[in-house]
Amino acid sequence: MNTLTDIRLLAFDVFGTVVDWRGSVAREVEALGLGIDGAAFADAWRERYLPAMKAVRKGTRDWVNLDTLHRENLEGVLQEFGIADQLDDAARSDLNRAWHRLDPWSDTVEGLARLRSRFVVTTLSNGNIGLLANLSKRAALSWDCIVSAETFKAYKPDPRTYLGVAGLFDLNPAQVMLCAAHATDLRAAAKSGLRTAYIDRPLEWGPDRLGDVPGPEDRFDFSASSIDDLARQLGC
Amino acid sequence: MNTLTDIRLLAFDVFGTVVDWRGSVAREVEALGLGIDGAAFADAWRERYLPAMKAVRKGTRDWVNLDTLHRENLEGVLQEFGIADQLDDAARSDLNRAWHRLDPWSDTVEGLARLRSRFVVTTLSNGNIGLLANLSKRAALSWDCIVSAETFKAYKPDPRTYLGVAGLFDLNPAQVMLCAAHATDLRAAAKSGLRTAYIDRPLEWGPDRLGDVPGPEDRFDFSASSIDDLARQLGC
Repeated sequence: MNTLTDIRLLAFDVFGTVVDWRGSVAREVEALGLGIDGAAFADAWRERYLPAMKAVRKGTRDWVNLDTLHRENLEGVLQEFGIADQLDDAARSDLNRAWHRLDPWSDTVEGLARLRSRFVVTTLSNGNIGLLANLSKRAALSWDCIVSAETFKAYKPDPRTYLGVAGLFDLNPAQVMLCAAHATDLRAAAKSGLRTAYIDRPLEWGPDRLGDVPGPEDRFDFSASSIDDLARQLGC
Repeated sequence: MNTLTDIRLLAFDVFGTVVDWRGSVAREVEALGLGIDGAAFADAWRERYLPAMKAVRKGTRDWVNLDTLHRENLEGVLQEFGIADQLDDAARSDLNRAWHRLDPWSDTVEGLARLRSRFVVTTLSNGNIGLLANLSKRAALSWDCIVSAETFKAYKPDPRTYLGVAGLFDLNPAQVMLCAAHATDLRAAAKSGLRTAYIDRPLEWGPDRLGDVPGPEDRFDFSASSIDDLARQLGC
C-alpha cells in the first residue's frame, strides 16, 4: 500500500529548505552600511525564532504571525548589536521585510517546476501567507498552493499543521510528503503519518555550523542533496 | 491619493468570473449518460449554493467548506432529477469533484498572466483551498496566492473575507481590488473599502438568464469585458 505511487501532495518547508535566509538577510544588513557582520546578524535574528514561537505554541500567547515575531525579535537584535539608534521605524519595517525577499538556492526553481509536473506542490511553512506569496513572486517560485502556519493558526511542529494540509486536500496523511532540511520538522510530520523527504542544505547556517540534520536513528523515506535531486528520485 | 497606482493586490472571485462552472458541470453530468440536461442540472446545483451557505454565514452552523456543501446539495439535486438511485457513493464523490475540474473562460489564462506582471494576484473565492488549487493546476491558472473563504472560516460577502485578504498582505483595503462578475460581491467589497473591478460574464447562467449584474446606481472603479480587457485597462 505504502508505495511511492500513493504520494499525491508534496508540502515544502521554506526557510532553509527552499531559500537561503542567512545569505539573503546578511546581504540586506550589509547593504545598510552600518559596519555590521551581516551573517552574524542574520544568525542572531534567526536564533530568536524558536523561542519567540514557543509562547504561541504553548497557547500562553494568542496567535500572531511571523512578520510580527520577526519585528519583535529585530528590536532585540538591534540592541544586541548596539545599532538600535541608527534605524528609524520605517527602516526597521523595511529591514523586517528582508524575510519577504529571500533568494532561492540554485536548484530550487527548476526542482519545484519538475516536481509540479507530477505532484501537487505546496508550501507548508511557519512564514505567514503574505510573506510566502511575496517571497515566491520575487524569486519566481511556482507553487500549486500557499499553505502556512497562519492557515491553521498553529506553528510547526504542531500536528495541526501536518494533518491540516492533508485535510485541505482531502487526502490521508500517507498521501502527503513533507520535504524539509530539518530533522525536527520531518520527525513531527512522520509522527502524524506523513511521508518524509530530507533535503540536505549544509550551508543553511554557513560552512562552520551544523543545522538540524538527521541522526543515525532517523529513517526518512527519501534523502536528497537538492530539490532537483529529489525530483530525479521521484521520477519527475 | 486614491489613484490607480495605489492598487497593489488583485483579488479574484473564481466561480463565474474566472471559470465557466455551468458549462463545465454540464459537460460532466452529460458524460454520465443518464439522459439528463446537463445545464439544467448545473443550474439547479448552483441555485442551492447561496441557501446552503446561509446557516454558516448567520453563525447557526459551524464552519464547513464548500466541498461539503456541494455534496449535501448534490444529494438534493439527484432527488430532484429522479436519478438518486443511479449513482453510488463513489460516483457521487467523483461528480462532486466536477467543481475541481472547471474550465476557464477563453481569456482567463492570458489575462491573469498579464496582470501578474504588475500586481500581486490572488484568488478570493468561496471555494475551499484544495478545490481552488486543484482547479488552478488543471486549468493552468497562475496565481501568486490561493486565498479562500476557508482561510478565514467565513464566506463572502462577510467583511472578514475582504478585510482579511488585505490583512494577510499588510495592505490597506484601498490597496486591494476585488475583481468579480457579481455586483453583490463587489458592493460588499466596496463597503469594506476595497477597490472594485466588474468583469462582464454574460454567459455565466447561459444565454437566456441574467446574472448578478450591476444596476444603474452601481459605481465600480473598473468595468471590463474580460480579464484580458481588465489587464489592458490597467496597463499590463
